[in-house]
Amino acid sequence: MAQSKRATGLIADKGIELLTYGTPNGQKISIMLEELKEAYGKEYTYQSISLFEGVQKEPWFTKLNPNGCIPVIVDHDKGGFAVMEGMAIFNYLTRHYDPENKFCFEDPLEVSTAEQWLAWAHSGLGPIQAKANFFYRFQPQRHGFPTQHFIGETERNYGILDARLADRDYVAGPGRGKYSIADIPAWAFINAAGVTGLKLEKFPNIYRWWERIGERPAVQKGLKVPSGEEFAFGYKVMQKKAQEDPQGTEEREGPLREALEKAQKEFGYVYKSP
Amino acid sequence: MAQSKRATGLIADKGIELLTYGTPNGQKISIMLEELKEAYGKEYTYQSISLFEGVQKEPWFTKLNPNGCIPVIVDHDKGGFAVMEGMAIFNYLTRHYDPENKFCFEDPLEVSTAEQWLAWAHSGLGPIQAKANFFYRFQPQRHGFPTQHFIGETERNYGILDARLADRDYVAGPGRGKYSIADIPAWAFINAAGVTGLKLEKFPNIYRWWERIGERPAVQKGLKVPSGEEFAFGYKVMQKKAQEDPQGTEEREGPLREALEKAQKEFGYVYKSP
Repeated sequence: MAQSKRATGLIADKGIELLTYGTPNGQKISIMLEELKEAYGKEYTYQSISLFEGVQKEPWFTKLNPNGCIPVIVDHDKGGFAVMEGMAIFNYLTRHYDPENKFCFEDPLEVSTAEQWLAWAHSGLGPIQAKANFFYRFQPQRHGFPTQHFIGETERNYGILDARLADRDYVAGPGRGKYSIADIPAWAFINAAGVTGLKLEKFPNIYRWWERIGERPAVQKGLKVPSGEEFAFGYKVMQKKAQEDPQGTEEREGPLREALEKAQKEFGYVYKSP
Repeated sequence: MAQSKRATGLIADKGIELLTYGTPNGQKISIMLEELKEAYGKEYTYQSISLFEGVQKEPWFTKLNPNGCIPVIVDHDKGGFAVMEGMAIFNYLTRHYDPENKFCFEDPLEVSTAEQWLAWAHSGLGPIQAKANFFYRFQPQRHGFPTQHFIGETERNYGILDARLADRDYVAGPGRGKYSIADIPAWAFINAAGVTGLKLEKFPNIYRWWERIGERPAVQKGLKVPSGEEFAFGYKVMQKKAQEDPQGTEEREGPLREALEKAQKEFGYVYKSP
């Protein structure tokens, strides 16, 4: 259930209602909800919270999430209980709505391993990449020092994940691993690497993992929430656009890349992971 | 068990071994372990991982935490199982070693509320304040734009916590709340507000909560891990030093504060929370 008008309050009265926007932070949760829908037939409602219009700072919204940001879920089957913060949402959803542990684990030590990587994506990979985008792309002015710092930290994080995936198909679970909540948030950020100006091809284990998970129908559906459209900044979409319009792409991306390279030289950046 | 020589590997063979350093990220876990010791008599071992000597990037350490940072716990009673990432460590410790839920909750919705605030401290308050310190204090050069950005974001986070504590004694739990894992990590960062140049007196609800929790014996003990000494950058200690040596304090702090104020003017900073 999508809507085009500005959200002014909750719209559902049963099941899970997701308040979200088309960013990796929102997509990680819509992907999870699409997985639960496919696995258990659990339906959910969603609303778009337009970040550019500041809907996330309105009183009705900050009552649900005092931090004023997406994603938030509201469980109408639990008296309208609201859950903020991605990591807490993953734990909430798997504990209440994944009775067969299809996306988590039974063994307490496996649960902990999944939580460790989930916590790493929640506080390391995701927020650092968001700050890298903020300085690299979204500021009107270029600020060299923080740009190279946060891009460098993001690359360092990619290096950690690439090493983890060297002998595994998925981040957590015994043997080569099992697709779980340890993969989903990291995947949503990695899929947006193009925004950060990073090349997934430099991280071959991540690349294979990114392709493998990207084939899942629930992932493809989750990426289209809430707009209903293809995610314009997904890695595959950005690659295709660059091939179709190399000149326009270079006009847009070239100055950002050059500003980064200049800052990296100025501040003596050397790639290192961890 | 503290040691002064450079750590080269694990030293215990039973119970929990904490690898840490005297920063809020480490202290939040030593506080938790001191609480479990006081509540249940659970002993633990700790080692200092000297961040300035790069011990956290050595192979024996990155095998335990591929992200190469503190804190890490190793549970020798579970085959040497290692847990990285503060939020995952809190969940691990309460699930395995807090059978009476003295620091967590029984009710699944209360557990979720605690986890939401824990996740907020883990990915919002903590890492942002660490970046604020990085730009405000620890760089050889001042970088105005990111300094005012991260100090501003940290103040915004303090505002969120202050509002949460307006009618509560503790962050999570029914009524006025119960001291829990939702308080501990936030407290450890707030206690280091002086490093960030922030005044707790501007946040009266936080101030009362900070004082209340600071009186707990386990908190005072946890703050002394691993050095055995009083934490030199705790808010109370820094206040006392400023009173004893106002001139030295101003010589050290004045230039940082002035650089921040200049950047705030230049970039039009206005306090807003959330």
